[in-house]
Amino acid sequence: MNMSENLYEVLSTTRSIRRFTTQEIDEATLHRVLQAAIWAPSGGNRQPWRIVAVKDTRIKKQLGDIYSTEWDKYVEMNMQKLSEASEAVKEAATRGFATGTQLARTLADVPVVCIFVHNPADVFTTDAHLGRTPVVGGASLYPAVQNLLIAARSEGLGGVLTTLISAREPEVRAVLNIPEPWGVHAMVPLGYPQGKHGSLRRAPLSEMVKFDTWS
Amino acid sequence: MNMSENLYEVLSTTRSIRRFTTQEIDEATLHRVLQAAIWAPSGGNRQPWRIVAVKDTRIKKQLGDIYSTEWDKYVEMNMQKLSEASEAVKEAATRGFATGTQLARTLADVPVVCIFVHNPADVFTTDAHLGRTPVVGGASLYPAVQNLLIAARSEGLGGVLTTLISAREPEVRAVLNIPEPWGVHAMVPLGYPQGKHGSLRRAPLSEMVKFDTWS
Repeated sequence: MNMSENLYEVLSTTRSIRRFTTQEIDEATLHRVLQAAIWAPSGGNRQPWRIVAVKDTRIKKQLGDIYSTEWDKYVEMNMQKLSEASEAVKEAATRGFATGTQLARTLADVPVVCIFVHNPADVFTTDAHLGRTPVVGGASLYPAVQNLLIAARSEGLGGVLTTLISAREPEVRAVLNIPEPWGVHAMVPLGYPQGKHGSLRRAPLSEMVKFDTWS
Repeated sequence: MNMSENLYEVLSTTRSIRRFTTQEIDEATLHRVLQAAIWAPSGGNRQPWRIVAVKDTRIKKQLGDIYSTEWDKYVEMNMQKLSEASEAVKEAATRGFATGTQLARTLADVPVVCIFVHNPADVFTTDAHLGRTPVVGGASLYPAVQNLLIAARSEGLGGVLTTLISAREPEVRAVLNIPEPWGVHAMVPLGYPQGKHGSLRRAPLSEMVKFDTWS
């Protein structure tokens, strides 16, 4: 298998994994996955981010408590949007949220919880004055998260990129002793999947890509 | 070579490439690289982004003109920060910016220029009310850009994640016929590198990763 075939096998089967076995991640494997994150690019190669990789059960429990309240609000917000929908649609949505709810309640049991933090002073936001919510700061941050997720997949591990906990940044900072002005931009639980890696549900290329101009 | 060894070879040699040969990218290769971007995760699997892949020389020239003025401002801003530095430091900085300046001036000659756009209405920004610049919107956008870059590397292509052109979003929208409210969050020139893929300059894991707590 050549370099690109192998890569496409990894990328096309890197699903969001939210249910994990209790199998520990050995230190060498964890270090390889973390190193993969570090290889990601960033603006001016400033690498304005860090990972706090949490294995301590007591600390994971504190993060789980914070995450759970945000997750519950998120579910409630989404269910309210469906208030006019049929019972069948509501039940399907409830089932869809169940795995996320289980993850929130059992975060302390996930082998490693990676909290991604960044220094806002080292992030250059070229879209700060456009009258829409800026997103460009993420250009120096989320490539590293994606590298970590695909490296985890290649090792037989799984994870999921979550961001709800950012809303509670001051509390996360307190739990992990993160100094000001570092911000929280992602939480990635990592472990061996209970289910299987597998194919993805995505829109077709003809919808996602346009050539030369939009129309 | 197993799945993870091969992946780590790709990730550890995916450098930012700014100088390209004139060799075209054949359609099948380009489609594989674009498909890799589509496999990236996004919040609620909403895939709130699109790529406009520009091959038309006239349109690339227009993008190059927009990008050049932003690049020149960026260089000037950085050189002003060095106004008190020694001549040697200033000369080194000038050499460092030369490749970027060449890219800006010759963007029309790069085989494919990918403009990444997103729908702000489909991006959920959990860090919008923290008193710092939000970055979390990027969580649904930049994993796709990174997938594209590493897929390009595995095919022997190169590229670089740039964001300066976002500052000129309304003009880019006009050039590419992108409708409101779509925003511009990245530009990735793609082609075969003039130089070689190779090792990266990154901070060590001991600096980038902390275990359990920050301190």
